[in-house]
Amino acid sequence: MSTNQLDKKSQAWSALFSEPMSELVKRYTASVFFDKRLWLADITGSLAHAEMLAAQGIIGADDRAAIERGMAQIRSEIEAGTFEWKLDLEDVHLNIEARLTQLVGDAGKRLHTGRSRNDQVATDVRLWLRGEIDLISDLLKELQTALVDVAENNVEVILPGFTHLQVAQPVSFAHHLLAYVEMFARDAERMADVRRRTNRLPLGSAALAGTTYPLDRERVAVSLGMVDDQGLAQVCQNSLDGVSDRDFAIEFTAAASLCMVHISRFSEELILWMSQNFGFVKIADRFTTGSSIMPQKKNPDVPELARGKTGRVVGHLMGLLTLMKGQPLAYNKDNQEDKEPLFDTVDTLKDTLRIFCEMVGGQLNPANGQKEGGITVNAQAMEDAAKKGYATATDLADYLVKKGLPFRDAHETVAHAVKAATSHACDLSELPLAVLQGFNASIEKDVYECLSLRGSLNARNTLGGTAPAQVLSQIARHRTRLA
Amino acid sequence: MSTNQLDKKSQAWSALFSEPMSELVKRYTASVFFDKRLWLADITGSLAHAEMLAAQGIIGADDRAAIERGMAQIRSEIEAGTFEWKLDLEDVHLNIEARLTQLVGDAGKRLHTGRSRNDQVATDVRLWLRGEIDLISDLLKELQTALVDVAENNVEVILPGFTHLQVAQPVSFAHHLLAYVEMFARDAERMADVRRRTNRLPLGSAALAGTTYPLDRERVAVSLGMVDDQGLAQVCQNSLDGVSDRDFAIEFTAAASLCMVHISRFSEELILWMSQNFGFVKIADRFTTGSSIMPQKKNPDVPELARGKTGRVVGHLMGLLTLMKGQPLAYNKDNQEDKEPLFDTVDTLKDTLRIFCEMVGGQLNPANGQKEGGITVNAQAMEDAAKKGYATATDLADYLVKKGLPFRDAHETVAHAVKAATSHACDLSELPLAVLQGFNASIEKDVYECLSLRGSLNARNTLGGTAPAQVLSQIARHRTRLA
Amino acid sequence: MSTNQLDKKSQAWSALFSEPMSELVKRYTASVFFDKRLWLADITGSLAHAEMLAAQGIIGADDRAAIERGMAQIRSEIEAGTFEWKLDLEDVHLNIEARLTQLVGDAGKRLHTGRSRNDQVATDVRLWLRGEIDLISDLLKELQTALVDVAENNVEVILPGFTHLQVAQPVSFAHHLLAYVEMFARDAERMADVRRRTNRLPLGSAALAGTTYPLDRERVAVSLGMVDDQGLAQVCQNSLDGVSDRDFAIEFTAAASLCMVHISRFSEELILWMSQNFGFVKIADRFTTGSSIMPQKKNPDVPELARGKTGRVVGHLMGLLTLMKGQPLAYNKDNQEDKEPLFDTVDTLKDTLRIFCEMVGGQLNPANGQKEGGITVNAQAMEDAAKKGYATATDLADYLVKKGLPFRDAHETVAHAVKAATSHACDLSELPLAVLQGFNASIEKDVYECLSLRGSLNARNTLGGTAPAQVLSQIARHRTRLA
Amino acid sequence: MSTNQLDKKSQAWSALFSEPMSELVKRYTASVFFDKRLWLADITGSLAHAEMLAAQGIIGADDRAAIERGMAQIRSEIEAGTFEWKLDLEDVHLNIEARLTQLVGDAGKRLHTGRSRNDQVATDVRLWLRGEIDLISDLLKELQTALVDVAENNVEVILPGFTHLQVAQPVSFAHHLLAYVEMFARDAERMADVRRRTNRLPLGSAALAGTTYPLDRERVAVSLGMVDDQGLAQVCQNSLDGVSDRDFAIEFTAAASLCMVHISRFSEELILWMSQNFGFVKIADRFTTGSSIMPQKKNPDVPELARGKTGRVVGHLMGLLTLMKGQPLAYNKDNQEDKEPLFDTVDTLKDTLRIFCEMVGGQLNPANGQKEGGITVNAQAMEDAAKKGYATATDLADYLVKKGLPFRDAHETVAHAVKAATSHACDLSELPLAVLQGFNASIEKDVYECLSLRGSLNARNTLGGTAPAQVLSQIARHRTRLA
Repeated sequence: MSTNQLDKKSQAWSALFSEPMSELVKRYTASVFFDKRLWLADITGSLAHAEMLAAQGIIGADDRAAIERGMAQIRSEIEAGTFEWKLDLEDVHLNIEARLTQLVGDAGKRLHTGRSRNDQVATDVRLWLRGEIDLISDLLKELQTALVDVAENNVEVILPGFTHLQVAQPVSFAHHLLAYVEMFARDAERMADVRRRTNRLPLGSAALAGTTYPLDRERVAVSLGMVDDQGLAQVCQNSLDGVSDRDFAIEFTAAASLCMVHISRFSEELILWMSQNFGFVKIADRFTTGSSIMPQKKNPDVPELARGKTGRVVGHLMGLLTLMKGQPLAYNKDNQEDKEPLFDTVDTLKDTLRIFCEMVGGQLNPANGQKEGGITVNAQAMEDAAKKGYATATDLADYLVKKGLPFRDAHETVAHAVKAATSHACDLSELPLAVLQGFNASIEKDVYECLSLRGSLNARNTLGGTAPAQVLSQIARHRTRLA
Repeated sequence: MSTNQLDKKSQAWSALFSEPMSELVKRYTASVFFDKRLWLADITGSLAHAEMLAAQGIIGADDRAAIERGMAQIRSEIEAGTFEWKLDLEDVHLNIEARLTQLVGDAGKRLHTGRSRNDQVATDVRLWLRGEIDLISDLLKELQTALVDVAENNVEVILPGFTHLQVAQPVSFAHHLLAYVEMFARDAERMADVRRRTNRLPLGSAALAGTTYPLDRERVAVSLGMVDDQGLAQVCQNSLDGVSDRDFAIEFTAAASLCMVHISRFSEELILWMSQNFGFVKIADRFTTGSSIMPQKKNPDVPELARGKTGRVVGHLMGLLTLMKGQPLAYNKDNQEDKEPLFDTVDTLKDTLRIFCEMVGGQLNPANGQKEGGITVNAQAMEDAAKKGYATATDLADYLVKKGLPFRDAHETVAHAVKAATSHACDLSELPLAVLQGFNASIEKDVYECLSLRGSLNARNTLGGTAPAQVLSQIARHRTRLA
Repeated sequence: MSTNQLDKKSQAWSALFSEPMSELVKRYTASVFFDKRLWLADITGSLAHAEMLAAQGIIGADDRAAIERGMAQIRSEIEAGTFEWKLDLEDVHLNIEARLTQLVGDAGKRLHTGRSRNDQVATDVRLWLRGEIDLISDLLKELQTALVDVAENNVEVILPGFTHLQVAQPVSFAHHLLAYVEMFARDAERMADVRRRTNRLPLGSAALAGTTYPLDRERVAVSLGMVDDQGLAQVCQNSLDGVSDRDFAIEFTAAASLCMVHISRFSEELILWMSQNFGFVKIADRFTTGSSIMPQKKNPDVPELARGKTGRVVGHLMGLLTLMKGQPLAYNKDNQEDKEPLFDTVDTLKDTLRIFCEMVGGQLNPANGQKEGGITVNAQAMEDAAKKGYATATDLADYLVKKGLPFRDAHETVAHAVKAATSHACDLSELPLAVLQGFNASIEKDVYECLSLRGSLNARNTLGGTAPAQVLSQIARHRTRLA
Repeated sequence: MSTNQLDKKSQAWSALFSEPMSELVKRYTASVFFDKRLWLADITGSLAHAEMLAAQGIIGADDRAAIERGMAQIRSEIEAGTFEWKLDLEDVHLNIEARLTQLVGDAGKRLHTGRSRNDQVATDVRLWLRGEIDLISDLLKELQTALVDVAENNVEVILPGFTHLQVAQPVSFAHHLLAYVEMFARDAERMADVRRRTNRLPLGSAALAGTTYPLDRERVAVSLGMVDDQGLAQVCQNSLDGVSDRDFAIEFTAAASLCMVHISRFSEELILWMSQNFGFVKIADRFTTGSSIMPQKKNPDVPELARGKTGRVVGHLMGLLTLMKGQPLAYNKDNQEDKEPLFDTVDTLKDTLRIFCEMVGGQLNPANGQKEGGITVNAQAMEDAAKKGYATATDLADYLVKKGLPFRDAHETVAHAVKAATSHACDLSELPLAVLQGFNASIEKDVYECLSLRGSLNARNTLGGTAPAQVLSQIARHRTRLA
């Protein structure tokens, strides 16, 4: 067994170098302290590579066995927290390779045959991200389910629907929550699209130009599960692109940004709804904090932080786009800067989704199999608020249209009625019939039905509308979809 | 026929308002000067809506006929440039509706039944963007084809492959160009994904809560081509989401940003390659400019501007994400700010792709059916440059491995050889055999084959590698795919 | 008089070029349709340059006179709208120079002596931006004044101060408005800093390396007002930096982004305050719009749009930073992309500030010299809201501290009191003395003073606090500062 | 001594809360693991606060002494690494306060009199950032000095000056480096401006409205060094603004972004210059890395990473702007998200500047007092490259102008000459006199002087130009400025 070149890295890279890397540079360029989280993907990729090398006769069966044995030990060392990560070895790849060679000798040195760190890291990140996307997809499903659960209990609860934060028309609170289900469903679609483009194998691209060894790249792809719906191997078809492509990281961060924007919109509403002037909902005490100075405070820290973290993820997206702008082919060291933003985006998104799942839907009480401690709805406060802004004015206009008025005239007539009600500080439904008839003689007693919040709600009974019948049908659709 | 309420907008919105909008506010809030480009989508959407209203018996057949007649006239007026766009009418929708009512009277006023501008504008933007995505997809195909054409003529041309902008290994120039084909192919995939999510119908969501009229939304979707692969109508399933969703615009801008990042990378390389120290390619004079002061200048303005315009599109993505962050449901006026960035992104991307198609591939000479005036390749300059940086050093290491050395020792041996060659200012292949044997006695005369650029190129003959055989097979694959 | 080379640009740049620029490229690269707004700066810079050239004897007095005569005519043509802008002449500089030569012959051709478009455009943009910064500074002062005016009328008006959008402590509405005065005052400081770095002369850098003519650059700087506080000429000291520096544009856009972020915060509050659940303020009808479908609506379009336009400006900042990232020296065509984002940032900021000045402060009624139609304050609604969230709980804790309790125990005691009040759905001040004494025996009748909103307000009487005395003193300070 | 309320936080915030914070929420909302780096600022601020409280008679001299004693111990515990940071105590402030109370009892509880965490954290971040800005300013000065040092040794070295990456005119390499000195000098100016706005005291704003205690805020400001040039105390004048203002963090990050953009431009040039087709400079081996697969590689990792890290900082700026957009007053939990981007921006900028100082200027050899191991310049390669692109073509045009030709005709004549030289593959200076005279009969033998690189260089001898005389004068100016 020859001496291990990697062991000498702390002196100099090779005979070509007249001095070792400075300590300052080591810290500036090393990635091991953040890329070590790729360790499982790194080992998984290496095992698939070794299996193929053996199958192709490039290494012997005994080498493969030694590599598997060594990797098993490394895995248990890392899991046990006893693996020693070394800054001098720069990154997760060299750390694991050096330890492998220490454990199994020359077989370890043969593992790198036909690959370089350029295609190795690209493979690792893709494998790792694929797993994270799967977790995120599960969380998105869980959050949708939590929202559907709350919606189901609130189909008949009337919320003032706002446009421009001005009371517009009454809507079912369930209907409002289902709007977010639509958003998170789109996020899940996008995650599935990103997954498809992430799940392609760069390994075999070597440094940039491919390799002289007779690799079977499709075999590796299949053994790593990098296949399409028909089970066909998905392999990066161009080695230069394989080592330099970071589209999947950017595309993932863009999808995550959109998801966080949805979270930020929901958070904004939760914060508004919890403000004393609304008082529409409460979230459980365990999601709030007090103030060290103001004894009456219960602050909605979680939605506020989530709203704030939107900026964090959007910032990472911008960072990644700026990173790749104008880079010539193929691999440049700049690319190492893809990892921290990507990792932090994954962490932020997962934590946020997880906490929203529980904050909205509550947590399972094992004693009764029920979810408890989710969002609490103050239906009365919502309905009271819906009575404030002449939410049924459109219904009055529709009523007049049915009596034969052109819509534009009806609109103007109602504007007069609203003006009168405003000056009396009352709702339209509180104006006496005689007063209403003063605006248009065709108005009859049945007008009060259309001026009621519930009458207005029930009337919007087309596909996608807020009528409870529609909402129930949407809930059923989501149940089927999420099952 | 009643008076037209819209005509009175310049006095005040309605009886509720005590004063008209100030001129300053009109200019600040009006969108007609940029959203008028949606006119065709607006008319198309209105005709589909009218057709459905008539089919459902909500308006009469005569009304529908009048609306179609009026719209035909408006269309010809706009195409002829005689349509008078009015600031007082705020946006494209009110401008067209007001003119329609002027032309066909009450039928025009009935068109707005069961819809609001909130769902109308969302429908218009989606229809318009769908068309633009189709144009962009065509341009992406055209650009890929142009790159494949140039690649096909340059399979055997040797370029120094760079990593870290340091000479790494020789690659086929065709192989290098095909890396960009991979990128633009992914862009096309993403555009198809965005199209799917764009091609859904918000119409019928009305202001925010749905409508009281018995609309058949799926009929409208089908007549507007908003269907999936199986021909099933694609309809926004929640009215609040339907009017406030701008995901598709953001997702499109994210996909466009990635495409521009690819363009920026290609531009960076073109600019490098055209610099006197490279001299690898020329682009036709009609894509360059001179200097008003320096008579010798031919500047690659087009790739430079394209690289610069990447910032523009990335900026729009940032703008849109910031725009939506923290907005409560449903529609807020903020959303109007989605249009200019989206429009400019579309324009920038289309113009850039179009100009790159011609700059790379040339333009058709009708006389001989050939494309002429595309990129000119200086194969000699490329090959000369490939000889500079010890591009075959890895091949020498591989040679030594075949002679029995462990790779890490071979790597170190070659480092010594490179050091010696550097001090003699010559290439590895120019070192005499005796000198090479001084580094390792097993080296024989056949080493010079592996030290040649072409030998190195041909040896990388696995899937995705740079060997001409692989490149030709990729070209064939792309030809099939793009056919 | 020789033929004018610029006239032949439509055929080809020069003998070096084998074909003219394609139409597509012309449109892609031309800037005249947006940079023509620099025309006055361009003429101003040219006149100062000509004056210096004559003073240095580089051109004759007659040439200078001819140039001045020609420029006077061009100025009047542009102001009259009769100047013909030509796409073939690319940009504002060549358009004006070509027309000048047409008007005054060889003198016009001599104007370009010792300069290039690279330093010319940098000078133009700086001159133009300096003027815009001055306008923006005036608007910032005007907006601060409007806020101080409204504040002065509302010193005693009690608003619930929020943290986390939860009622925290009562504050003076004037105090709240003055927080925005602080922000806009910082914006004005930043604008002054940007102005200082903008107001430096690149002219004389020529293409990139300086010029062979004996220019007096400091003379030009002085005549263009590019001087520091002591009147010393401010000249870019390095020609490469002079032509490639766009820091001032980025720095301005960063300052504008911060200012828009402040506007977005104020807008958010205005939108909240106008929502029916708050009802704290009204803005005049001319700043709102109605809905074409909902007759009761008055939407706060202006603050919503302003909030949305924040994204636009932040997007431009992102675009400019991306643009400059990684550009080698000196001038690259990418830089042309600096103009549209910069122009749009200036327009957006100016329009937004102008409209906020009037929306907050109203407009001058010439009849009585009073400002009318600004923001309307509903003091009662504010005070009612301040009573909702136990805003004086901290005051009760402070009361207990004065009675000898450690603060942390006082905090806990008040938490119990708040819990009791909540369960009785009443305010702390509505709990009977006996009940309060149940929490702590030392509580006496005077507690009700400290539980009153006004008592709480008056008590915060240190520098920067909300007590009316402090607020009045701040108003006086601002009046002096803004005078 | 009463029980410590903070100790019970792990059960519930106060009597108001029915359950403790969930573990998930604790991790999501806690900041102690990143904000503990503020510990020294936190202690410093607390000591100044305590000193003032005692001076105002709000606490006793013994309390102050106890606080100082406790803080001294905490400081030594933290420095020794023995301080136990607790997640349950959320942040740096509560961790230190709880420990203080543990150490000194009731005196510790009195420290928080008249302040809240809202104004405390704002004060801490400002104090900390002020110190970091000072370090960054020193590094900017050091980097400028390193550049001036290298420039001084390379005044006569001729580099091809590029525009559009096409050879434009010869410039002194020193002149080129001094362009970067200008940029970093502007960065230092901006840092000074940010420092001024950072160095203002929020303490005394309390939660949001000020406090009921008779604080002397100006005394605290003075004792913390928060004073202007005249020594006047700088105090945030509005409590609501004091606790919610994060302008200084955004402004700092914007200044840092610009600085990183400058670094990215310099990095791009270093990477180009080190590429084999340029070969203009070398950086020392300790700033480069090899490849694990390609034995010949020395990669410029440091400039590449620095270029990549530009995206990171720009991303943080975007994150912070998004964070603040649309936030209502006063403090919201979103603001906690300001810290990580700010901390990472500071770290990235400092590390990058530090490494560039050494990479450019080398490190001090204590043996001889010389700096060694900085950038190595290949003057010959630069001069050879300057001969490639007809860099003196403008000089020939100027020559013809002096012979009486109008500049535009001279420009065209030289274009013909360049075309001829190109077809002969030679430089203008290599064309025989007879050939040159064929283009214009007035050309004489002295033309060869103006066609030489050095002649061209020396001729650009006005302020800011590249002539060695000018460059030397700039070097002297910078020496004085940086002294």
